[in-house]
Amino acid sequence: MRTLVDAPFPSTFRVLKATMAEFPALNGQSVAYVVLEFPGNTVNPPHTHPWASELLFVLMGSVDVGFVDTTNKLFTQKLQEGDIFVFPKGLVHFQFNSGANNTALALSAFGSASPGTVSVPNSVFNSTIDDNVLALSFKTDVATIHKIKSGLSG
Amino acid sequence: MRTLVDAPFPSTFRVLKATMAEFPALNGQSVAYVVLEFPGNTVNPPHTHPWASELLFVLMGSVDVGFVDTTNKLFTQKLQEGDIFVFPKGLVHFQFNSGANNTALALSAFGSASPGTVSVPNSVFNSTIDDNVLALSFKTDVATIHKIKSGLSG
Amino acid sequence: MRTLVDAPFPSTFRVLKATMAEFPALNGQSVAYVVLEFPGNTVNPPHTHPWASELLFVLMGSVDVGFVDTTNKLFTQKLQEGDIFVFPKGLVHFQFNSGANNTALALSAFGSASPGTVSVPNSVFNSTIDDNVLALSFKTDVATIHKIKSGLSG
Amino acid sequence: MRTLVDAPFPSTFRVLKATMAEFPALNGQSVAYVVLEFPGNTVNPPHTHPWASELLFVLMGSVDVGFVDTTNKLFTQKLQEGDIFVFPKGLVHFQFNSGANNTALALSAFGSASPGTVSVPNSVFNSTIDDNVLALSFKTDVATIHKIKSGLSG
Amino acid sequence: MRTLVDAPFPSTFRVLKATMAEFPALNGQSVAYVVLEFPGNTVNPPHTHPWASELLFVLMGSVDVGFVDTTNKLFTQKLQEGDIFVFPKGLVHFQFNSGANNTALALSAFGSASPGTVSVPNSVFNSTIDDNVLALSFKTDVATIHKIKSGLSG
Amino acid sequence: MRTLVDAPFPSTFRVLKATMAEFPALNGQSVAYVVLEFPGNTVNPPHTHPWASELLFVLMGSVDVGFVDTTNKLFTQKLQEGDIFVFPKGLVHFQFNSGANNTALALSAFGSASPGTVSVPNSVFNSTIDDNVLALSFKTDVATIHKIKSGLSG
Repeated sequence: MRTLVDAPFPSTFRVLKATMAEFPALNGQSVAYVVLEFPGNTVNPPHTHPWASELLFVLMGSVDVGFVDTTNKLFTQKLQEGDIFVFPKGLVHFQFNSGANNTALALSAFGSASPGTVSVPNSVFNSTIDDNVLALSFKTDVATIHKIKSGLSG
Repeated sequence: MRTLVDAPFPSTFRVLKATMAEFPALNGQSVAYVVLEFPGNTVNPPHTHPWASELLFVLMGSVDVGFVDTTNKLFTQKLQEGDIFVFPKGLVHFQFNSGANNTALALSAFGSASPGTVSVPNSVFNSTIDDNVLALSFKTDVATIHKIKSGLSG
Repeated sequence: MRTLVDAPFPSTFRVLKATMAEFPALNGQSVAYVVLEFPGNTVNPPHTHPWASELLFVLMGSVDVGFVDTTNKLFTQKLQEGDIFVFPKGLVHFQFNSGANNTALALSAFGSASPGTVSVPNSVFNSTIDDNVLALSFKTDVATIHKIKSGLSG
Repeated sequence: MRTLVDAPFPSTFRVLKATMAEFPALNGQSVAYVVLEFPGNTVNPPHTHPWASELLFVLMGSVDVGFVDTTNKLFTQKLQEGDIFVFPKGLVHFQFNSGANNTALALSAFGSASPGTVSVPNSVFNSTIDDNVLALSFKTDVATIHKIKSGLSG
Repeated sequence: MRTLVDAPFPSTFRVLKATMAEFPALNGQSVAYVVLEFPGNTVNPPHTHPWASELLFVLMGSVDVGFVDTTNKLFTQKLQEGDIFVFPKGLVHFQFNSGANNTALALSAFGSASPGTVSVPNSVFNSTIDDNVLALSFKTDVATIHKIKSGLSG
Repeated sequence: MRTLVDAPFPSTFRVLKATMAEFPALNGQSVAYVVLEFPGNTVNPPHTHPWASELLFVLMGSVDVGFVDTTNKLFTQKLQEGDIFVFPKGLVHFQFNSGANNTALALSAFGSASPGTVSVPNSVFNSTIDDNVLALSFKTDVATIHKIKSGLSG
């Protein structure tokens, strides 16, 4: 992560991971980190971590966070620098830097060396699932499914 | 589940659960069942089970199944009566009865008494997540988000 | 399991397994199935599964089931089509189709890909344990031990 | 266990337990002890421990031990003072002091505070399982089942 | 942790914890944080975490770290801002800011909501263990034990 | 362990292990033994087992035992032949035979095949940790650290 220190801030949302894949010494240690960099008005899209809860720490700026429980109830909070928030294992969650002109930086820890990430947009709309299955699932028409798929596949 | 035996087949996709919530004797046993009933041309929309893998057994008819791994690669198969398929814990998956005039029936077992279910359509588009967050996440416009939300909230 | 669908029903009790041994994709998934076929008046003899609880679902016919807890108390029930019953991990249990002229069919799920099976008759009386040890253990004479051994070894 | 030290040796096989039931401080510690006292020509009948492996240490005398794996293969050994033997979790096993005039003493440790014990003779033949089920299971006649039951119920 | 942001840096080594004790929402999440603040020339004394590995991230300054494995081999490293280091569960480790005039700041994540901390100086020399036991254990005289105890008890 | 039986008692404290390293059959069994031999006035110095609790059984003589919890509170007891005592996983503990002329013998069981041992004297003072780090940690001077190190390194 030392490369982060003097690097310029990215222009789009960026994740730097220190999980077992990047840092093999974590094998068997049940812990990992990711650094989350949010330029202004960027989002970490809805996703889940199938194998660990996530504990987010805001290092700089402000971040709007939310997760949805298995009854589809949404929990949100606006976090400031120094705040901590926990996203339970397997639940859909997201983070958003709503300040158009402010950057935000967060560090997240996981209780697994391999937390995994399932991105909802890519997993569902960018993975060649049949249009008809998706239209039935989202109770919409195939044209709307095409519209979403084309935006994501760019 | 005895009520199932002589009941008429439902007209929409239906799930009957025998997890710890419905069957408290399962507490501590690390196993549960659900029965899945598919009228013709119905789908069990993309979802995940945060706390268990699912082993599906087709009791009647034919079912198209698929799951997406953490690299967004889709695995699909057309199952016949007597076939078995495993959906790994935490990954997005779906089932579809593509035969317009044929019913299908499946039984799924889970290696947990409380597998949990995270429905992608409801968790993401029917849980009051901010429209702007969703539009940014799915790289589309707010109008398209509204369109999907309205179909699901009906 | 597809071979089951149109096969004639067996004339003796039969188990078809879909555990990790037969279905390697179950590795790491913590779930498995077995199909149990009971012609009339047949029994699945007392046995234990050392590594998982079993959740039995009656698909056809009627099955008398029982398990014995660690205080030697017996729990029994007569199950009908659609009924579910759980056998806790490691405890002695059995299933019996008491209808002489009726077949029965059940599906069992396990919370492990390798539940294991310890058959009491075979493990104790068909495994070359010394006759004297068995006579002392069952508080009987060696002749009775011989009688049971000869029936099982046939 | 201090009561053991100066007590006279029992005249029948005896087990003294220090598991969570007798010694609540073991809660959460995943370890337990039992002391096994074998007068000459006595046996600890075939049994399983559903929730832990057993590590036996011979403190005095000689003990014949055996366990049966899930393929019904028997593993036996004659142990002397100071010998150690491991009985895997959930498998049927027994211990036997074959010396008519020699006492034997062993200590067993378990990797659980509640290893549980399922006695085969009592669980199967002293728990009111139906005679017909047992006769079918052991491929013998009801008279032989009665004979074994009467010896054990005394 | 928001109180940290504008607070003056402490004059002695300080730990701020966000474990289950301070942040009950972490119950069941298997993850926790602590913030470590090192004024110049201060040390986090040798200690262990009995229930979790620790993943340290240097946020500011430089930190000398070390841990000792079960063969008493020492592993050390000088970390700079942005560096990550893992201390395996249960092993003795320490951190040291050797720069007399520089402050250092680190964040540590744990793969448990209750990692626990066993401080070697306090656990061994500040807990009323008998002087004679300690003198024998450390192969020294009682006067030296007294000397260390008096420094720590101040 | 059979070599123990007729061997002369050692003149210094000695540990004989039967863990997975010495007894590979313990792989996967979650249980292990060590034998502890205490000549008069000898100590098993403060140490931890990172991966298992320890259940000590006094076979001969008397042993003073103690452990320190994470609040630095000491729990001690004088054990006699036949007594049992549990040392929780990861906590600092010791055993002492205070009788100058009496030997003592104990057997300890662990709920892991690889409990591990972290010796406080060797891990901290016999592992090349920097003198300055130790002096700061134990709030003493470098000369005292040297004194302890020289006694242990002999």
